[in-house]
Amino acid sequence: MDPDALSKAFVEHYYSTFDTNRPGLAGLYQESSMLTFEGQKIQGSQNIVNKLTSLPFQQCKHSITTVDCQPSGPAGGMLVFVSGNLQLAGEQHALKFSQMFHLMPTPQGNFCVYNDIFRLNYA
Amino acid sequence: MDPDALSKAFVEHYYSTFDTNRPGLAGLYQESSMLTFEGQKIQGSQNIVNKLTSLPFQQCKHSITTVDCQPSGPAGGMLVFVSGNLQLAGEQHALKFSQMFHLMPTPQGNFCVYNDIFRLNYA
Repeated sequence: MDPDALSKAFVEHYYSTFDTNRPGLAGLYQESSMLTFEGQKIQGSQNIVNKLTSLPFQQCKHSITTVDCQPSGPAGGMLVFVSGNLQLAGEQHALKFSQMFHLMPTPQGNFCVYNDIFRLNYA
Repeated sequence: MDPDALSKAFVEHYYSTFDTNRPGLAGLYQESSMLTFEGQKIQGSQNIVNKLTSLPFQQCKHSITTVDCQPSGPAGGMLVFVSGNLQLAGEQHALKFSQMFHLMPTPQGNFCVYNDIFRLNYA
C-alpha cells in the first residue's frame, strides 16, 4: 500500500473512531505514545484516552481538508499532517484544527501512534 | 538545553532566516531532506531552497502563535509543530499557517531538518 493511501486510510479510521467511539482510540496508542493537546503533554495509551474522552463535548464531527505524509526515517515510521474542521454538537461554527501523527510499525504489521500533536487554529 | 527551549530557538532562527535571507535556509536541509509545501513534494536541500526562494512574494514576515515539540524516537530526533501568521508585503490580511519539522541531530552536534510539511490554513 502506498504511503499516501495508507495515511489517508489511517486518518479516516482515526477520526471516524474519534467521532463514534472515542474509547476505541486506545488501541491506536501504546505506553510510550505521546499526545500534546493544545499545549498539554500526556503520555501513555490510557492517559491519552482519558484526556480525549473527558473533553468538554460529547458529540463532534471531524471533516478533513488536507492530509500530507512523509517517511520519518529508516525505522519505517510515517509522519501524517492533517488540517480540517471540527464541528461540535450545538455550535454554529466549526473550529479549524491542525494535527500531526507519527506512526510507527508494530511487530504485528500494523501501525501505532507514537507522536500526536493537536492544535486548534483560532481565527 | 531542554527540548522546548531548543525547538523555540530553532523556530525563531528558521523564520528569521526565511524573512531576511531565504537562501540561507539551505544550511538547515540536507540531501535526504523532504519538504511538502501545500501538497507539493520536494526533496534535497537545493531543490527545497529553490522552491522557497521562488515563491511568488519577495518580502514576508512570520509571526509565531504556538510551538509544540516531542522527541520522535530513539535516534534523538525532535518533532516541532508550529502555528502562526504569515504577512506578505502589500497584503492587508495575514495568512494563517501550520508547519511541522522533524529535526535530526547531525554528527557536528547541530540539528538538520529531515521532514518539513507546510500548509496554509484557509479561512
